[in-house]
Amino acid sequence: MKQLLIVAHGSRRVAANKEVLTMASKVAANLQLAAEDVAVAFLEFSEPSIGVAIDACFSRGVKEVVVVPYFLSAGSHVINDIPHEIDKVRHRWPDKNITILPHVGASGTMAKLLAQTC
Amino acid sequence: MKQLLIVAHGSRRVAANKEVLTMASKVAANLQLAAEDVAVAFLEFSEPSIGVAIDACFSRGVKEVVVVPYFLSAGSHVINDIPHEIDKVRHRWPDKNITILPHVGASGTMAKLLAQTC
Repeated sequence: MKQLLIVAHGSRRVAANKEVLTMASKVAANLQLAAEDVAVAFLEFSEPSIGVAIDACFSRGVKEVVVVPYFLSAGSHVINDIPHEIDKVRHRWPDKNITILPHVGASGTMAKLLAQTC
Repeated sequence: MKQLLIVAHGSRRVAANKEVLTMASKVAANLQLAAEDVAVAFLEFSEPSIGVAIDACFSRGVKEVVVVPYFLSAGSHVINDIPHEIDKVRHRWPDKNITILPHVGASGTMAKLLAQTC
């Protein structure tokens, strides 16, 4: 079973956080995964945190979590904060795997998407 | 002449800001525009600001600037900060047009791109 975890910044605006949840549902549909196989976590302003979200995955038997940093640039959140939070989780689950993918802004097709929106 | 302005959050990490500049170049190439026709501005941590960037466009004769909020969710930056900064510019250039596009995360193809990266 593939378990994705989309990690977003999080916002004080509830609607912005809901937008991420909707995006996760669409990604699950795109990948023909169940809704629970594409989880969401937030760094700030919303819940669950990365730690709580990954604990929940591993507690229900998932063996590997693939983290998708939902960020456009490799700023401090991507370079420092997300890996730091994940290191803390790894200590609790030594027999499980956590993989961090490149941030979404690094996608080779982002420029094309952006051009299409203009 | 179409003038785009990609507005990003900005980062303390120089590499993250350069990433946005590289993205702008790719968007220009995608749209067969000159490099200067796709400008970049930052809300925080880097320059130019939205005001300085738009002033520069209008000062060189551009009649309309199309602002592309390079954000994944409609948080406070998208809903409040960017429009606020642009309102301030509008007062200085009453005969020019500024259009704000939806933030990039609202793109109908973002879920597909995200699914492809997983």
